[in-house]
Amino acid sequence: MKTSLSDHKSVQQIEIIKVKGHDFFPCTDDVSVEEPLEIRISYSFENRRESKNISVTMRTPGHDAELAIGFLFTEGIISGYHQIVKAEHHEAECSRNRKNIMIVNLAEDCSPQLMKADRNFYTTSSCGVCGKGSIESIRTVSAFQNSRKEKYTVTFDTLYRLSDQLQSFQNNFRTTGGIHASGLFDQEGNLLALREDVGRHNALDKLIGHALATEQLPLDDKILVLSGRASFELIQKAAMAGISFVAAIGAPSSLAIDLAKEFDMTLLGFLRDNRVNIYHKSKCHEIIQK
Amino acid sequence: MKTSLSDHKSVQQIEIIKVKGHDFFPCTDDVSVEEPLEIRISYSFENRRESKNISVTMRTPGHDAELAIGFLFTEGIISGYHQIVKAEHHEAECSRNRKNIMIVNLAEDCSPQLMKADRNFYTTSSCGVCGKGSIESIRTVSAFQNSRKEKYTVTFDTLYRLSDQLQSFQNNFRTTGGIHASGLFDQEGNLLALREDVGRHNALDKLIGHALATEQLPLDDKILVLSGRASFELIQKAAMAGISFVAAIGAPSSLAIDLAKEFDMTLLGFLRDNRVNIYHKSKCHEIIQK
Repeated sequence: MKTSLSDHKSVQQIEIIKVKGHDFFPCTDDVSVEEPLEIRISYSFENRRESKNISVTMRTPGHDAELAIGFLFTEGIISGYHQIVKAEHHEAECSRNRKNIMIVNLAEDCSPQLMKADRNFYTTSSCGVCGKGSIESIRTVSAFQNSRKEKYTVTFDTLYRLSDQLQSFQNNFRTTGGIHASGLFDQEGNLLALREDVGRHNALDKLIGHALATEQLPLDDKILVLSGRASFELIQKAAMAGISFVAAIGAPSSLAIDLAKEFDMTLLGFLRDNRVNIYHKSKCHEIIQK
Repeated sequence: MKTSLSDHKSVQQIEIIKVKGHDFFPCTDDVSVEEPLEIRISYSFENRRESKNISVTMRTPGHDAELAIGFLFTEGIISGYHQIVKAEHHEAECSRNRKNIMIVNLAEDCSPQLMKADRNFYTTSSCGVCGKGSIESIRTVSAFQNSRKEKYTVTFDTLYRLSDQLQSFQNNFRTTGGIHASGLFDQEGNLLALREDVGRHNALDKLIGHALATEQLPLDDKILVLSGRASFELIQKAAMAGISFVAAIGAPSSLAIDLAKEFDMTLLGFLRDNRVNIYHKSKCHEIIQK
């Protein structure tokens, strides 16, 4: 797949006034850039090429091709990397439009699941809207949920190092104090890839897009670390990529836990300061003291 | 307006294993409930009633009517409280569907702006997708952006108390450690209303829905406090409600700052531990030492 490199800035310097107590002083500060990205697909239908806008997401520029293909995959619109011919920025006429459109060209024989693109209704099952229905709707599209999972053992000391590692590698967080990250680690706690974004779902889509483009899926022998809270949406995306071990620095929601149990994924929360909560442990994983 | 009371639980108790260092012990823990809510409208079109699904959002149950009408208002689908006849839960046949559909009945003479419901394209202006276009698209629908703003003065000591107050009133955060809040304060720092949700945008929609239903809009003499980061989406919703003073406990994004400047809204970030960053100060506001 050809992807165009991003020349976007992900951090912007601005003039602010810092106040401590009653003292204030003007200074220059770094903030995370947030810009819209429109994701479009180009695909074949009845012997002609069609183009369709799939989504506009507010994202931090950088790794846009990974974000676009990760999004298409975790939302079930495409089912694999072989369906992608190329992903590149579309340069519009307007100079203000700074590479904010990403076009993903799909292979001739690929029929994208366009119903999945309509997020307004993705949780509506025949019996109504409920958490159970939301979980079932993932089961119908996840390619990896029935594949045999890798069995492995992780030590608590390895886990405790993950949150520090995530932050030490998180460049933009250090300067802006305001950006989410998703990190992929091996079982020994070595960082394999990290992606940042103002939107936590975008950070994970970028990471999964990267893994998809480097043909690493399913990620059933890896550990996903989330910089913030674990919502249903993030566990859903992890499940789509075959990830079965998720550790969040923040709290999980009830539906995230339900989904982890249903898919037998290990889900840890509040991983910080040598402490962790185990919300569910997969039967494939052992977590041991040393 | 008639609204149905919510009997949803917003916090759920589950069995987990807590680990400190190498010691672990099973215990009961509180987690924030996350469930889908489908927002539907019923409206008149060519002498008959039509029904349309507008959105499915993953939310923490409670204040569902406020969430639905706040969402419709901040997204520009309706323009005022007079357009709402009632908002109530729809009970589906399926027992698993626990009040997860909210139907908002609109007045006979109300034409909802259904184009605004299509979030996939809301930032697409004629010249392309960009931050500037996103800001301009709000200008076209915001009822309050040209109204004269209330001039007032706030002390730093008042501001420093806001973050503590937000957390002391935030019941679910205390028990779960994982939920967002939006709080509305007067200029003396008294809390007027607070709403919580696993989705930060939902917490703000609930708060604005509450203000809309109690006919308090525009909120140009109030202070909005956000428990986390200030994204473009949150500042957009604040702008729609006529809020001109926003203080976030976390970091703002570049586009949130751009929007605050464009609409001359005061935007503060990192409000904690007797410190604050001023990203933009409205010409209507004075922030003084005592």
